[in-house]
Order: sequence, then structure tokens, then C-alpha cells
Amino acid sequence: MLSITRPTLLLDERKCKNNIQRMAQKADRLGVKLVPHFKTHQSLEIGEWFRAEGIDAITVSSVKMASFFGENGWNDITIAFPLNVLEVDAINSLLSRGVRLKVLVVSVEAVEFLNEHLVAPIEAFIEIDAGYGRSGVPAHKLESIQSIWTALRDSEKVRPYGLYCHPGDTYHENSTEAIQSLWAEAIEKMKELKKELDDQGTPLKVRMGDTPGCSVVEQVNGVDEIGPGNFVFYDLVMDHLGVCEAENIAVVMACPIVAKNAESRQIVIHGGAVHFSKDYLLDEDGNKFFGEVVILEEDGWSPVIEGIRLKSVSQEHGILRASEELFETLQVGDVIGILPIHSCLTANLMKSYTTLKGERIPHLEKVF
Amino acid sequence: MLSITRPTLLLDERKCKNNIQRMAQKADRLGVKLVPHFKTHQSLEIGEWFRAEGIDAITVSSVKMASFFGENGWNDITIAFPLNVLEVDAINSLLSRGVRLKVLVVSVEAVEFLNEHLVAPIEAFIEIDAGYGRSGVPAHKLESIQSIWTALRDSEKVRPYGLYCHPGDTYHENSTEAIQSLWAEAIEKMKELKKELDDQGTPLKVRMGDTPGCSVVEQVNGVDEIGPGNFVFYDLVMDHLGVCEAENIAVVMACPIVAKNAESRQIVIHGGAVHFSKDYLLDEDGNKFFGEVVILEEDGWSPVIEGIRLKSVSQEHGILRASEELFETLQVGDVIGILPIHSCLTANLMKSYTTLKGERIPHLEKVF
Repeated sequence: MLSITRPTLLLDERKCKNNIQRMAQKADRLGVKLVPHFKTHQSLEIGEWFRAEGIDAITVSSVKMASFFGENGWNDITIAFPLNVLEVDAINSLLSRGVRLKVLVVSVEAVEFLNEHLVAPIEAFIEIDAGYGRSGVPAHKLESIQSIWTALRDSEKVRPYGLYCHPGDTYHENSTEAIQSLWAEAIEKMKELKKELDDQGTPLKVRMGDTPGCSVVEQVNGVDEIGPGNFVFYDLVMDHLGVCEAENIAVVMACPIVAKNAESRQIVIHGGAVHFSKDYLLDEDGNKFFGEVVILEEDGWSPVIEGIRLKSVSQEHGILRASEELFETLQVGDVIGILPIHSCLTANLMKSYTTLKGERIPHLEKVF
Repeated sequence: MLSITRPTLLLDERKCKNNIQRMAQKADRLGVKLVPHFKTHQSLEIGEWFRAEGIDAITVSSVKMASFFGENGWNDITIAFPLNVLEVDAINSLLSRGVRLKVLVVSVEAVEFLNEHLVAPIEAFIEIDAGYGRSGVPAHKLESIQSIWTALRDSEKVRPYGLYCHPGDTYHENSTEAIQSLWAEAIEKMKELKKELDDQGTPLKVRMGDTPGCSVVEQVNGVDEIGPGNFVFYDLVMDHLGVCEAENIAVVMACPIVAKNAESRQIVIHGGAVHFSKDYLLDEDGNKFFGEVVILEEDGWSPVIEGIRLKSVSQEHGILRASEELFETLQVGDVIGILPIHSCLTANLMKSYTTLKGERIPHLEKVF
């Protein structure tokens, strides 16, 4: 057993590699290219586990992440975030290294800016908003999309590559059927746009994002590439959505128990908002909770324990509320496991992973 | 003007020093000792600004923080978190360096454990829960408190120091009067306990935590020491509580604007949950918001701009919704300022501060 004295993010390498392999096999089976999003793990070592499955192109969500992976062996990187014109120097630096970069543009001005300031050619997706409402050109604004496309075709340095859609509203659905139908609608919009734009003589790729969709959708006719990220670890949000099983979750926070209060059946752990973030789910009664509890074992951890949950977090404190039986079983000085609500934010806060063998794997935020 | 290309946490040194000075002067005026909590800034440089005001004893919320400050010039440190017995080696290492440590105990077992395992004497507070419900022995459990006190008096290595109370429920009040009356009740409980325990012949100190109370309470008869933390920067939670003015907030996140959507009047910034955390406040209509907007200026930033707010955050994206006029004014490539909801979590995520002169000040998470 590992010697753990303070909050430590454990990574089950086998579960993680299974998640990667399952998604790679699914992409193969469906005939789409997997361009995984590395925002969740942000790790060079875990990146190699993807490479072992034949992955050669990746997605990131900031120029900082692109620089990290581009300076460390990855040569085909999509920056899936609306182009930040202020970071053109860092983009040029990556282009100068020979990294094949793809960026997202949402305006003619962005294309013109790139054309004027780049030291080497780049490829561009037009980001399309199929209804999520976060970023991207709304899918119905055909005229805007066409003018961006025309600007791309006319540009010397910015080459048209495709249409990018992150249908992130799948995170708020409550059944796999709803996720599938949301994807079907989004794909339909992308196909219509592709037809309109293909008429202009430029072949284009359609890429779809989001782990919920990529996990449960089987009908992908019209999609060329997928770019999910969270699936590498999954988390309780994905479990509650029904797009993974709790046993697929590849990370758990090991937290020391520091106090017990018999009156309230509350157990205080070291494990708070600076470890988990403050993402939450709602229980059957509509109350927030911040994690599920598992028992740490020699070679991993148990299934979720019923009758106990992480009910609140402040900066460093976490408060579990437990059934009478569990309250008696757990002792100050024990280390328990908490499955995270949102693994991307948890990994970003913890800045490293500890494998079950005790190896430390750094996250970008630790080193860059 | 600073050259900012990606999310950057700006620190107004003057506002921060004023916040420190104001609290130090208030403590002097009220005749209590200020033992500031360093969990908010977690910075050696900002620590020196406290030292300049005569501060020689500090509060932290983890053994990791105690090690950081103890190894860097601070010799009187309270670890305001229920004792984590698994970290006794790190505690011993600090004691061996000659650091005067104070810990919080909530059980007789914790006292016995320390007595058995420490290499040198330590001081202990009993943590009292005056009603907040997070940690500490409930104030009405006199018998439990007395037995811990007896264990402390009988202990060779653990010296009784005082009673510690963090009335964190002040964060959920909605007027300064309510905060004041909550403090009055908590102080009353502490005084009663003190009387009971002083009868046993051991003088003890009463320390109260929380920035809201320390900012607005004037009646502190019965309190010996105060340990607030957040006041060093303040934030929108404190502004909305009415315990500071928005102009006292000493940190702001500078965020590039990367896209605009005229249809929805949404503005996309680089600035999301990995920069701000997901803490939120509710607006007049009960809708969540994640920050207020200011205009960055040569020597700081403007007052809060009305008609625009940070309405949602995902991992890297932030979405502002703006009035028609503001929407037209703000342009892609501009850098705007966002006042954080919760400065402690924001500072922890950003891991460094940039002063208005462009100097970088690291946070513990950057260096330790």
C-alpha cells in the first residue's frame, strides 16, 4: 500500500489505458479519426499511452497547452479555442518548430489577422455552434460561415481544414438517447453546411467533440474526426449521465480523515475546493454533493460505498456525512478515496498523478 | 501598460497594503492580536508586507503551508485545521527547526497521539464549533471540551494555548448587523467556555477567525486574537456581504477577448474555471454569475462596469453577456479585467501574481 499523508490524486493506469483503448477501437470501428483532447490529463506520460494506440494528432484548449505538447514531441495539434490574436508570437514559435497547427476561427477578421501575422501556413477550422451557445458561429448563420470560408480559401497562409463543433449541451442531457438525438441534430447541421461549402469546391472535414457523445453515439455518418477528452479518466458527471460506469473512472483522490463528529455523523477529511474544485452533482433530494466515497485497496479501490458522500467543501476541508454503520467503521488517520465530480478540474488543481505503484506523473501545471 | 496575452492575475500592491494596514490598525485599536491567515495569498513576498505592519505570528490551513512558511522565515505558526496525525513527521521537522507551532485538536486521542509522537513541545487550541457545523467540538459539549482540556494540561509535550473558533457562517449572512450578532453569540459561548476552563487554573486565549466578522465587528470583549485571511485581497463575496467596497478588492484577472457573438450579445474571453474556480454569486434575478467586469487602466482598474457580467465559465472559456452599448465598445484583442468571486481559490489556481509594475510574485503552489 502507498504511504499517503495528504490529499493525493491516484491514477489507475489499467483503467486509464482501457478507456483510451476503448475509444481508439470505437473510432476505428466507426471509421472516424480520433484526435483526442489533452485538456483533461495534460500529461506527457499519459500522452504516450495514446501514442501506443496509434494516435498522432491531438487537441488542446489553449496556446499554452499547444506549446507544452508541441515542444515535447507532438507535431499535429488543434487549438480548440477561438483564436487569441494576442498569442500570435507563441503560435509563430510553434510553426517555426515545424508543428502542424490547426486553429479555430469565428470571424473574417481572425483569418485576415493570421494571414498578415503568421510566419508559416496554418490550418483552420470554422467553429460552429450547433446550439450549445458557448462559442462558434451559430449554424444557421450561413452567410457569415460562407464569408469566413471564402476568406480562408483566398488566404495565402490560412488553409481551410474543416468545421469544428463541440456540442457541449450533451453534458446537460439525462439519457443516452437524448445525447444521441442531440448528436444526430448537430451532425445534420454540419452535413448541410458541408454541402453548402463543398459546392464552393473545397473538401472539408467535420470534427465533433464532447465525451458524452463520443462515448454513446454509434451513428456518425457525416463526421470525419472526433475530439473527446474527459473519457481518459471519466468522472462522476459522466457516470451520472450514463456514458460510463463508475468502475471506468481512472482517478480517485486519497484523503486523510482528520476528525469525526458523532452528533452530526460528519467526518472531516483533508480534501477541499483546492483539491476537487467546487463542481457538484445533485442527489435524489436535490442536495449538492462533491464526491462519492470508495475504499482504497492494495491494487486500486472498491466500488462506490452507499450511505456516505462528500456533502460540502471549503478551501481545505471536506465534510462527509455517513450512515451510522459507516461512521463507526471509519477512523481518524484512515485514508479514504473520493471519486471526483469533474476530473479535468481536479487534475488541473492537483498538478500530478500518483500511480498505484507510487510513480509520480506530472501535469502541465506542475512543469510549464 | 503591461503586455498581457493570456489570463493573468493582477495585484494592486497599494490596495493590498492598505487592506493589511487597515486590519492591523483595527486590531491595535480593539486591543486584540492579529494572527493573519496566509491561506489566501500563500506568498512569501506578501508575507513581508504583513511583517512591515509588525506581524510576527501567522495562521495557515495545512501542514504543507506551515512547512512553506516555517522554512522561509516564519517562527510562530498556527495550523488552523484539525490535526492530521499522518503528517506528524512534517510537524516534527518544523519543531526541530525551532518553529513555534500551534495546532488544533478536537479529541483526547489527538492530544495523546501528539504526546506520544512529538520530538519537541507544541501548543494546542481546542477548536470550538459555535454553530457553523464544519469542524470543531460543538460549544455545548462541555464535557468533551473539558476532557480535552484536562488531557492537554496533563500532557508533557502538548501545551494548552486557547480556544479557536471560525464562525464561517458569517459568509452566509446578508447584513453587517447579522454578522455582528452572530459574532456576539459566538463570543458569548467562548467566554462561557473560558470561564469553565479557567476555573481549572489554566489561562487561555480566545481566537476568532473569518474576514467578515473581523472586518465589521467592533465589540470584541472576550477575544484575545483574530485570524482573518481573505481581507488581504477581499473579493466579490465580501463586497456583496457588505464587509468591503469593490474598490478594496486588490486582485483582478486580466483576460483577453477572443470572440463576439452579436446575436446573443455574448463575448468570449480566455478565462474559465481553471482561472477563477466555479464559485458564483446570484444576481437580482437569481441567476449565477462568476465575476464582475472592470476596465484595465495604466495604474490599476476602473470601478465595476454596469451592464456586463461573467455569466458562465467552462474549463478555459468565460462568457460575458453585455448591454448593447458595451457590446459595441469591446473588441476582440482587448484585455478586460474580471474581479473574482472568491480570491483564495483564484490565487490558488493562478499560482502567481503580477503587480501593476509587471513584477511576478509566486504563490506557494508555484514553488512548493
